[in-house]
Amino acid sequence: MATETKPFWGKKTYCLITGASQGIGRQIAIDFAQNIADNSSFFLLARNLEKLNETKSLMEAANPKIQVFCHSVNLSEPTGVELHKLITLSLTVFAQDPADYQQAVVVHNAGSLGDVSESAVEMRNVEKLDKYFTLNLYSVTILTAEFLKVFDIDRTKSEIVFINITSLCAVKPFPSMGYYCIGKAAREMYFSVLAEENKDLTVFSYSPGPVYTDMTDEIIANVESDEIKKTFTNMRDESKLLTTQQTVKRLVEILRDRSFTNGGRRDYYDEP
Amino acid sequence: MATETKPFWGKKTYCLITGASQGIGRQIAIDFAQNIADNSSFFLLARNLEKLNETKSLMEAANPKIQVFCHSVNLSEPTGVELHKLITLSLTVFAQDPADYQQAVVVHNAGSLGDVSESAVEMRNVEKLDKYFTLNLYSVTILTAEFLKVFDIDRTKSEIVFINITSLCAVKPFPSMGYYCIGKAAREMYFSVLAEENKDLTVFSYSPGPVYTDMTDEIIANVESDEIKKTFTNMRDESKLLTTQQTVKRLVEILRDRSFTNGGRRDYYDEP
Repeated sequence: MATETKPFWGKKTYCLITGASQGIGRQIAIDFAQNIADNSSFFLLARNLEKLNETKSLMEAANPKIQVFCHSVNLSEPTGVELHKLITLSLTVFAQDPADYQQAVVVHNAGSLGDVSESAVEMRNVEKLDKYFTLNLYSVTILTAEFLKVFDIDRTKSEIVFINITSLCAVKPFPSMGYYCIGKAAREMYFSVLAEENKDLTVFSYSPGPVYTDMTDEIIANVESDEIKKTFTNMRDESKLLTTQQTVKRLVEILRDRSFTNGGRRDYYDEP
Repeated sequence: MATETKPFWGKKTYCLITGASQGIGRQIAIDFAQNIADNSSFFLLARNLEKLNETKSLMEAANPKIQVFCHSVNLSEPTGVELHKLITLSLTVFAQDPADYQQAVVVHNAGSLGDVSESAVEMRNVEKLDKYFTLNLYSVTILTAEFLKVFDIDRTKSEIVFINITSLCAVKPFPSMGYYCIGKAAREMYFSVLAEENKDLTVFSYSPGPVYTDMTDEIIANVESDEIKKTFTNMRDESKLLTTQQTVKRLVEILRDRSFTNGGRRDYYDEP
């Protein structure tokens, strides 16, 4: 699948990661810190600043030659003005200009599960649906738009990479997972259209497989479908869920090998 | 693909069609009227009542042995209360109980193209995104929910069929078609989840192919992408676009042969 070979990990990078306070987002931050070129900068966003700063400490322990800046943000109420200001603020903190980086990366990791106690026929509350899409889709399109205003590819000549953390649920329906399925399907399609329209961007969706995170416990605790509850409970109890380390290791390899199709999706279990 | 054979067209049917005032929706109404069992009832919804009544006249000319009731509705501002009332009202007009029908069908045809002058990086207005999803997704989930309250399958024992009119855009990204692509992707996934959760429902998405309708002219007039404008202009000028008659004829055949997978998608161009 590799169409060209560029050293992703060898470049001085500006990397923005959403939802970096826990789970897969935190592990991505740590592993990216370990693998990235020296003098790279990381901008971490999530609601919980305290947990973001824990991620920062773990990153700096893994690699002291990076800069990390954390900021609290509520992506449930995204505004372009705020996100634009925050990206600009991070560059001020790093004392860098966008053109100082060889590569700029956004990892769209933040997201929510949705109400797994509701079946599809219960998904009929406009406000609730709107709230779900605002966090899981609109905040993503707004952040992408504002990022590309600051990191103007025509000026910086740097490579711009968008990594969308997706799920098998984007392409396969699961009972009681209606919100998650429709949100991930729409979000993945957004990135496919983005890639189709902007051939100079690097864009792909990574589906991390069944990973043990807080979301797993949330599913087991609340999911309406007995089938899903049983599947996840068994996988957890038999230690068959992936660790965040395992899945992020694969993501690091995929980026190293560029083993993805631009605009497409790559699952943990896909053959390289 | 046919997993079971039931005579779709031979049953006394209650059929609700959204967006039946023009284009594919109108053609579906006419062809369904021609093919359906006698004493079936059609409830047509769209904003424009005058055009709905034109559709009604065409249907009654095609088959005098059916009942047709039209009502104006604005699916941009859907409420469950209103949609529930309208379905109940239609049954009063038809002087029928849900259990009087052997089959109940909803054709979710209404939808909008979205702003094809915007590229993906310009899709950053929450209100605009929300408005698009309200019409193209939330109104669909609300209507489905309310329909299943009235046509309670446990009580009526009738077959319930949902037909989602989708597009190739649900599975393939096209430049300048961001809204349409993400809306159709999410909507298709909603129906896949619905089918997964309700094995007693019949659900499928029909992708009608490139059909010449008002939407085609809207694309040609407004689309930002030169590539898409050229493609559609050429297809139109060389009469390579399908007619609504052609594509609805195929849909009628698919229903007759049940040549679809429950919860899945079927394109005009798919092999039978």
